[in-house]
Amino acid sequence: MATSIYGDYIKSVIRTVRDWPEPGVNFRDITPVLQNSAAFRKLIDSFVHRYQELDIDAIAAIDARGFIIGAPLAYELGCSFVPVRKKGKLPFRTISETYSLEYGESTVELHSDAFQKGDRILLVDDLIATGGTMLAAARLIERSGGIIVETAAIIDLPELGGGDMIRAEGYSVFSACTFTEDE
Amino acid sequence: MATSIYGDYIKSVIRTVRDWPEPGVNFRDITPVLQNSAAFRKLIDSFVHRYQELDIDAIAAIDARGFIIGAPLAYELGCSFVPVRKKGKLPFRTISETYSLEYGESTVELHSDAFQKGDRILLVDDLIATGGTMLAAARLIERSGGIIVETAAIIDLPELGGGDMIRAEGYSVFSACTFTEDE
Repeated sequence: MATSIYGDYIKSVIRTVRDWPEPGVNFRDITPVLQNSAAFRKLIDSFVHRYQELDIDAIAAIDARGFIIGAPLAYELGCSFVPVRKKGKLPFRTISETYSLEYGESTVELHSDAFQKGDRILLVDDLIATGGTMLAAARLIERSGGIIVETAAIIDLPELGGGDMIRAEGYSVFSACTFTEDE
Repeated sequence: MATSIYGDYIKSVIRTVRDWPEPGVNFRDITPVLQNSAAFRKLIDSFVHRYQELDIDAIAAIDARGFIIGAPLAYELGCSFVPVRKKGKLPFRTISETYSLEYGESTVELHSDAFQKGDRILLVDDLIATGGTMLAAARLIERSGGIIVETAAIIDLPELGGGDMIRAEGYSVFSACTFTEDE
């Protein structure tokens, strides 16, 4: 598991909200990192540090928390920013991928003109849980001609198996930090 | 109306999607700005230029497109980032404001610990249309002790009256560019 230069620090600022959004779930809340200017800078810098030499053409970021790391990272790396959005949010021609959730399904969309063929893409989100959203977004990017350099998140929850599932599909996975359920 | 140093250029890169999301509506699509690295940089820099000397403590950004300008701006200004989210998305203690839409109503939420009393806040979103979301977010910020330095957006649609309504409540309004309906 790749780890971040500031991973332990970032993890220490993340807040665990017990029993949210439902009983038994420990939600890892990144807002204390965002609202602490020094922590927010270290969070973004941990991604800049990892990707600045990797010739990234575009950051693809997943709606909505993924935008919060993806946009500053695109600005700092001097590359383009592409939103991967929930169904019905993008106004131009789109391609879409539907994937299964624990109950029901969900769909992510991408503008069909978002990338040039062969563009090197970093795909980012806030969290890797079961990995379904990240994998669906990765498939969208490949369908549109992009090459995925890595999939990256602030937090990975390895016990939920998402990281392993994404790696099993041939993608590299990075997270700034990880949480196990008992933490 | 305040205008941006790169306003004409940014406006030239925005794409108008006719009849979306419904017939008769001209949707102003910022994704061509975001996916053009030079345009994205100029967009963020136009806000950095305006706010870098104004001692901003935090950027409050409205879910979800507001995150795309708010997060890089917070990083560049070295201040904190606070998301204003749709109902049910924030896990900790929240305060909320409900406001009227053309049909029905909507609610925005803010973590109650997001600001220190007296913090100087820049409130950002992608678009000012009727102004309802921006005003509800501004009220939330003031209830939590923040001082609104300005409300800012990429695009203002002055014919819809949102900017005037926000100014009538005593807030300053800035947009990188404006569109009239016939453009």
